Amino acid sequence: MSNNLPKQTRAIETRTAILDAAQICFAQNGFDATRVAEICQTAGLSKGAFYHHFPSKQAVYLELLNQWLEDFERGLETLREKDEDVPTTLRMLSKTFPSIFEIAEGQLPIIFDLWAKASRDPHIWQATIAPFEHYYQVIAELIEEGTHEKSLIETDARKTALILISIGVGALLQGLLSDNIDEWGAVGQDGIDWILKTIERKA
Amino acid sequence: MSNNLPKQTRAIETRTAILDAAQICFAQNGFDATRVAEICQTAGLSKGAFYHHFPSKQAVYLELLNQWLEDFERGLETLREKDEDVPTTLRMLSKTFPSIFEIAEGQLPIIFDLWAKASRDPHIWQATIAPFEHYYQVIAELIEEGTHEKSLIETDARKTALILISIGVGALLQGLLSDNIDEWGAVGQDGIDWILKTIERKA
Repeated sequence: MSNNLPKQTRAIETRTAILDAAQICFAQNGFDATRVAEICQTAGLSKGAFYHHFPSKQAVYLELLNQWLEDFERGLETLREKDEDVPTTLRMLSKTFPSIFEIAEGQLPIIFDLWAKASRDPHIWQATIAPFEHYYQVIAELIEEGTHEKSLIETDARKTALILISIGVGALLQGLLSDNIDEWGAVGQDGIDWILKTIERKA
Repeated sequence: MSNNLPKQTRAIETRTAILDAAQICFAQNGFDATRVAEICQTAGLSKGAFYHHFPSKQAVYLELLNQWLEDFERGLETLREKDEDVPTTLRMLSKTFPSIFEIAEGQLPIIFDLWAKASRDPHIWQATIAPFEHYYQVIAELIEEGTHEKSLIETDARKTALILISIGVGALLQGLLSDNIDEWGAVGQDGIDWILKTIERKA
């Protein structure tokens, strides 16, 4: 790593190198079997550099999860800027399934590892499951907007959001576990489309 | 255990005792941390008795999973005997969510443990994920029957089945991970109801 860069740029570079290396190690060997020393070796960094940026292996994982969820939200914001109505936006969002599959594929074993831990340990639960609540709210607000703009009928916005998310999560997990990801991508897209057909306000 | 019972009855009793003890141990300490010796101690049996019935700890887990899925299928068959049309049968099935939640709750960490392993090991995948294919087919046949009896419009029966199952799986997993199971039970029920509304043949 170059020493001619300003201090802040170098810090960001180091952080990114740690995250990239961790993703590779986690996917290959699992969260439990990966040691901080391996992440450092893959990143070409010292343990000192690692612990300067992250307090633990788990913190690195949570940052990876966080970045992935932020990508999803940025994707949704970009779609909203197209200024289409809510059902159209949700249908466009459901068309991004293949790329979500791609991102999640390598992370699947790590997600299950962490969920197994979360279901036994309230602290890990707080860190890994509680953040999803934010995304439930983001989709619920979108449903409310649909009712407001009169593209959707009046529904319990939160329940509608959770139904759409259930289809997405159910199709995503089964697709990643199956040997036919494409089939499950279509299941996610059509399922969301069918739910929208039930709640769209007919012109 | 009484020695006055016929040999076959005693074998079934031993098997059941092993399965019950394993379920308790797995739920408490996780699949990895549970040793065969602990299962034997909880069941009050020797290691010899254990290995007479099961080749491994994993075989016990798979039998537990198998029994749970068979319970689900028996429940569906009982519903079919009521001779209602397919949408009514599927709605009644979705009303069993609370009891599915109850059964699955203790097993959740074990399910995630096994899925994490399945996503890394093709042998475990074959044993834990492949059996679900049977249930996709059971539901797909039910959808075909609905089209045949003219309660449902013509759809790709398999895709329709996978959409309904995605809602169920998505709501089940998120409900088990959440601190509000009841909300997710309603999400599963209403989601299935809304999909049925889209594919029901209007009289």
